[in-house]
Amino acid sequence: MRARDGWASSRLAVGRLETGPGNRISDVPGVTVGHVTLHWEDNHTGVTVVVPGEDNPFVRKYTAAAYVHNGFGKSTGLMQVEELGVLETPIALTNTLNVGLVWEGLAEYMVERCRKEGVDLTTLNPVVGECNDSRISRIVNRIIRPQDVSQAIENRRADFSQGAVGAGAGTVCYGFKGGIGSSSRIVPVEDQTYTVGVLVQSNFGAMEDFLFDGQPLGRVAAERLGKGSIEPDKGSIMTVLATDLPLDSRQLYRVIRRCGVGIARTGSYTGHGSGEVMLGFTTANRVPLESGAVRTQQVLREELLNPAFQAAAEATQEAIYQSMLHARGAYGLKGEYYPGIREILTDDWD
Amino acid sequence: MRARDGWASSRLAVGRLETGPGNRISDVPGVTVGHVTLHWEDNHTGVTVVVPGEDNPFVRKYTAAAYVHNGFGKSTGLMQVEELGVLETPIALTNTLNVGLVWEGLAEYMVERCRKEGVDLTTLNPVVGECNDSRISRIVNRIIRPQDVSQAIENRRADFSQGAVGAGAGTVCYGFKGGIGSSSRIVPVEDQTYTVGVLVQSNFGAMEDFLFDGQPLGRVAAERLGKGSIEPDKGSIMTVLATDLPLDSRQLYRVIRRCGVGIARTGSYTGHGSGEVMLGFTTANRVPLESGAVRTQQVLREELLNPAFQAAAEATQEAIYQSMLHARGAYGLKGEYYPGIREILTDDWD
Amino acid sequence: MRARDGWASSRLAVGRLETGPGNRISDVPGVTVGHVTLHWEDNHTGVTVVVPGEDNPFVRKYTAAAYVHNGFGKSTGLMQVEELGVLETPIALTNTLNVGLVWEGLAEYMVERCRKEGVDLTTLNPVVGECNDSRISRIVNRIIRPQDVSQAIENRRADFSQGAVGAGAGTVCYGFKGGIGSSSRIVPVEDQTYTVGVLVQSNFGAMEDFLFDGQPLGRVAAERLGKGSIEPDKGSIMTVLATDLPLDSRQLYRVIRRCGVGIARTGSYTGHGSGEVMLGFTTANRVPLESGAVRTQQVLREELLNPAFQAAAEATQEAIYQSMLHARGAYGLKGEYYPGIREILTDDWD
Amino acid sequence: MRARDGWASSRLAVGRLETGPGNRISDVPGVTVGHVTLHWEDNHTGVTVVVPGEDNPFVRKYTAAAYVHNGFGKSTGLMQVEELGVLETPIALTNTLNVGLVWEGLAEYMVERCRKEGVDLTTLNPVVGECNDSRISRIVNRIIRPQDVSQAIENRRADFSQGAVGAGAGTVCYGFKGGIGSSSRIVPVEDQTYTVGVLVQSNFGAMEDFLFDGQPLGRVAAERLGKGSIEPDKGSIMTVLATDLPLDSRQLYRVIRRCGVGIARTGSYTGHGSGEVMLGFTTANRVPLESGAVRTQQVLREELLNPAFQAAAEATQEAIYQSMLHARGAYGLKGEYYPGIREILTDDWD
Repeated sequence: MRARDGWASSRLAVGRLETGPGNRISDVPGVTVGHVTLHWEDNHTGVTVVVPGEDNPFVRKYTAAAYVHNGFGKSTGLMQVEELGVLETPIALTNTLNVGLVWEGLAEYMVERCRKEGVDLTTLNPVVGECNDSRISRIVNRIIRPQDVSQAIENRRADFSQGAVGAGAGTVCYGFKGGIGSSSRIVPVEDQTYTVGVLVQSNFGAMEDFLFDGQPLGRVAAERLGKGSIEPDKGSIMTVLATDLPLDSRQLYRVIRRCGVGIARTGSYTGHGSGEVMLGFTTANRVPLESGAVRTQQVLREELLNPAFQAAAEATQEAIYQSMLHARGAYGLKGEYYPGIREILTDDWD
Repeated sequence: MRARDGWASSRLAVGRLETGPGNRISDVPGVTVGHVTLHWEDNHTGVTVVVPGEDNPFVRKYTAAAYVHNGFGKSTGLMQVEELGVLETPIALTNTLNVGLVWEGLAEYMVERCRKEGVDLTTLNPVVGECNDSRISRIVNRIIRPQDVSQAIENRRADFSQGAVGAGAGTVCYGFKGGIGSSSRIVPVEDQTYTVGVLVQSNFGAMEDFLFDGQPLGRVAAERLGKGSIEPDKGSIMTVLATDLPLDSRQLYRVIRRCGVGIARTGSYTGHGSGEVMLGFTTANRVPLESGAVRTQQVLREELLNPAFQAAAEATQEAIYQSMLHARGAYGLKGEYYPGIREILTDDWD
Repeated sequence: MRARDGWASSRLAVGRLETGPGNRISDVPGVTVGHVTLHWEDNHTGVTVVVPGEDNPFVRKYTAAAYVHNGFGKSTGLMQVEELGVLETPIALTNTLNVGLVWEGLAEYMVERCRKEGVDLTTLNPVVGECNDSRISRIVNRIIRPQDVSQAIENRRADFSQGAVGAGAGTVCYGFKGGIGSSSRIVPVEDQTYTVGVLVQSNFGAMEDFLFDGQPLGRVAAERLGKGSIEPDKGSIMTVLATDLPLDSRQLYRVIRRCGVGIARTGSYTGHGSGEVMLGFTTANRVPLESGAVRTQQVLREELLNPAFQAAAEATQEAIYQSMLHARGAYGLKGEYYPGIREILTDDWD
Repeated sequence: MRARDGWASSRLAVGRLETGPGNRISDVPGVTVGHVTLHWEDNHTGVTVVVPGEDNPFVRKYTAAAYVHNGFGKSTGLMQVEELGVLETPIALTNTLNVGLVWEGLAEYMVERCRKEGVDLTTLNPVVGECNDSRISRIVNRIIRPQDVSQAIENRRADFSQGAVGAGAGTVCYGFKGGIGSSSRIVPVEDQTYTVGVLVQSNFGAMEDFLFDGQPLGRVAAERLGKGSIEPDKGSIMTVLATDLPLDSRQLYRVIRRCGVGIARTGSYTGHGSGEVMLGFTTANRVPLESGAVRTQQVLREELLNPAFQAAAEATQEAIYQSMLHARGAYGLKGEYYPGIREILTDDWD
């Protein structure tokens, strides 16, 4: 039985692959995550950034891919990731109506950074994802300031917080309090190992559908909590996958599509209103802004992708659980209560 | 607890929606299924057709959609279904290398039928799906004859057989014997009900991954059977969804994407080599070959798609189980044995 | 020979279909266009909005489609248009790095409007398109203010200006000054007529490639101007198509794909760096926020789409010419001159 | 002025790039083309194969891409090319209703070849394209025999015939006799050169729309021939692009999308009924059936794709012209005449 951090993880053994040392997306070398969390009157929202590495991503871009699982969402930057197969900014997550301001904040950060580093920047593709936290936060207020993005980047670290922080401050998952969650898996490829890490912003699912590692915990909880009515599966989930596997953009696309398997195993059928977007990047095969005519890239033998697929599925499933296990209960704007899942995990579950 | 037909179903209660009276795709009025099964020396293969209705589908086409979940496959006709949103032939399933002959057989059937009915046909889009049954059947022989397609259509019926018949004769699912399986769900829409039916040709998954309604049956079975090694998730699964819901092609596309949720819940992460294709049609909104300039179509309010999504997920998950529950064990070409899943479902499972 | 407005149009007879009375996208009843143009020090940019109608688009959404011809671009909102087939905001165009602020401005406008009208809004999908005007305008300044979007909407009119206005203030097309251009075509469908209108923000193409109604005007001009070197086809073009044809989203998608034909006929091969995005909506088949379970929509017989395809191609081709014919020459930030195309259309061309 | 082979080419100078020595797809080293042409009673059809190289393509696959420009067509094999980015058979072209038999023929050829070479083959993705030649040929007869595919492959050569041969025997292009046409362009990349070659099976367009290198030849011809009525743009065009550029599948996809630019410049707006499919492969970056865990592939710097885009557009445009210039006039099944375009190219055009 694998050891994991703290109470929650001691009971989690999702899937068959080993987790990385931190069981986080930051197990992929170079990757860090930062938050800005805002609690102010009825506002409970924030920004979370996934920073792929320390050097300038506009100068040495990351091979990347994007996949839209259900397009009821407002993420930006996917089109260019799909066309060119590269990521040139950190990935920022926030709530739905703050997307414009966070886009501006990400642009501001990159413009300033490039100016300081003497890099000529006249175009940029900010990648922003979002979930709708309007059950808990007064979303129309759009209270994120562009500089919060720079601040979140500054706050980045490998051992980042999970749960109701950053862009997860006001999210709800399967009727419980959701948030930011992360998990990782070690991928064996012949005699070497690589890492696949996933971070989610969880804000989806109806309580009745929730499966905790195969068990119908949601159904039981709904009965206990008297929330037996079948509410729609709405909300959204943003999934960011990082790896150091030698992949090209097409292969990475294949990998991130398997994140949907992890989502499905937590019980959701991906409702109409649930925007579900997967973003992936690898720290291998960086693409320099300037280079010779022909570049060499390393690609995994296609048949060896299976463990990476499995890792994407397992790490996504567990990242969703982690987002819930780290979050305390919270009240919605209408006074309703979204319990932390630990409140439910009584003796017979624990 | 819902009652279902026979032994197997008495223990199955996948999901929350009611099943249709026959728990088959043919619960959608008009839909029938026919098989031709071939056992001859090392050949164990066949053809299965899903016939959407009794009248000529070329003359009154079906609103349809196609979705490629993993494109390692050879299905034909998807491109035109995607562009025009219509289906104009029965859907035929077979094994991988027989696709050409079955395409020809479907063309022959439609050319003859149109000739007899005085319909001018100079173009046709035969829709053929396939799985690779080469573990059990000598696939390079390509023994299907074009007329087998007409025969399968003639054999169509509402209470069709499941398991190791037709295109499922030689398939393997999670290391067990797979085959043709079907299930249906009743979809409530305000004060009316509609039906969603699914038929699968199951030929995918590694035993270790298999989840039987949330339980890790595959892991247990692998230990008992001494097949503990982790084999790749390969093979394929073809999924055909029928409904009588008033949908347009875009909505139907959204519905069939949820079939992947059902697959994921049986344990697979959709391996590299597993071609996974979803085809869907509705018996509402038929598209006549000849019509006035403007046609009226009925479309469901988008927010009401959720029960249809859930039905697609649940019926697919159960159709996979049914394909296995109806199939007896069989030997592979190398002498290995693929047990029927009922052989495993001993007292403690039953 | 058709009569068109002013000097330029008297020589233009692109294609075979009749133009609408105003030869603009606003020939589609209800559609208007507004600009805010900013000239301040080195900044020459702005916002252009296409307003599909006078009532609230969030309350009665427009059937819509989006197509990415070349994804080197930062447009927002496409994902949801593709998934749901509806548009719920005006379409705003601007320059690349102002996308975040214009997104925020569009959100602000809609939030305010819904608040005033008593409409509950907690989610919104702002559609923003962009071109990179950094040859003429100091793009890193991001000088658009969110309220400029509301102002542009307030400025809307049917007989809007074309050329170097709004989002076209700083764009360059085929080495000439580009900008906003528009054109329309009358589409006969049996005994009725409908309208297809196109508006472009033109910012693409290498001078040498430019074809003026089939003639290699660009090659001749490049020789005269001494710009004989082959520069890359970069920049972008945003294309917005409006119609009153009874189409569903799938059909509209097919129509807007033909805008690329119009682009190709002006000479460009759509360069690597040229983000090319098509957005389309119809004023038929509005989708109400609240409705009964089943909605009726009118769809054109598929075979009758051809004139709409032709209209999309012709109107796009001409809209590009109009964007250039209405624009006066301008100097770039490095002192280079982008002539108005009329400066080149001397006697032998006129 | 470039010299080209024979009468026709002496007047053609489409675009700006140099043509290869043979002005054919076979200018790409290793690529050959073979035909089987069938004239028998009312049948005028055949098979054309593009053979990417002499060694077994199943053993060393070709990096490839597929693009559906308009999906009214029945091509097979695209799905897997899109998913895996490889081609593992020659590409076969035929007429619409012979697709099944040609698929079977291609499977037969590859099964036999692998058997002889001791290669284990239990799966295969035959790529077959088609046009509808029913105006000239009795298409319902389906007279191609599977062995015709092997014969066409045996007939392969670098200096293959063009015009009304092979799969072009019965096609019609812009109301003229169409067929197989090919052209190539030399692509400069810094101090090296590569080749882009295109082969088309032309069967599309309305005479009135035809542009011959920018000139409205179709309109003039329609007046002279008394075919002034506007007929729909129907039929199809299959486009195969070969290159030796170091590209990955994503880049190749971007290249083949530009073939549509070439089509548009010949006048068509890609009618509803015109199936238009682009297939591309590179002889660089072969993908071996068996290999180590990590493979190295060479990819062009993205910004250097522009000449390849231009080459795709120019070679496609010219290949269409070549298909017409090499074809003599023919009578349709209803007695109507489809003139060879040379019959129209009298002194004032010549």
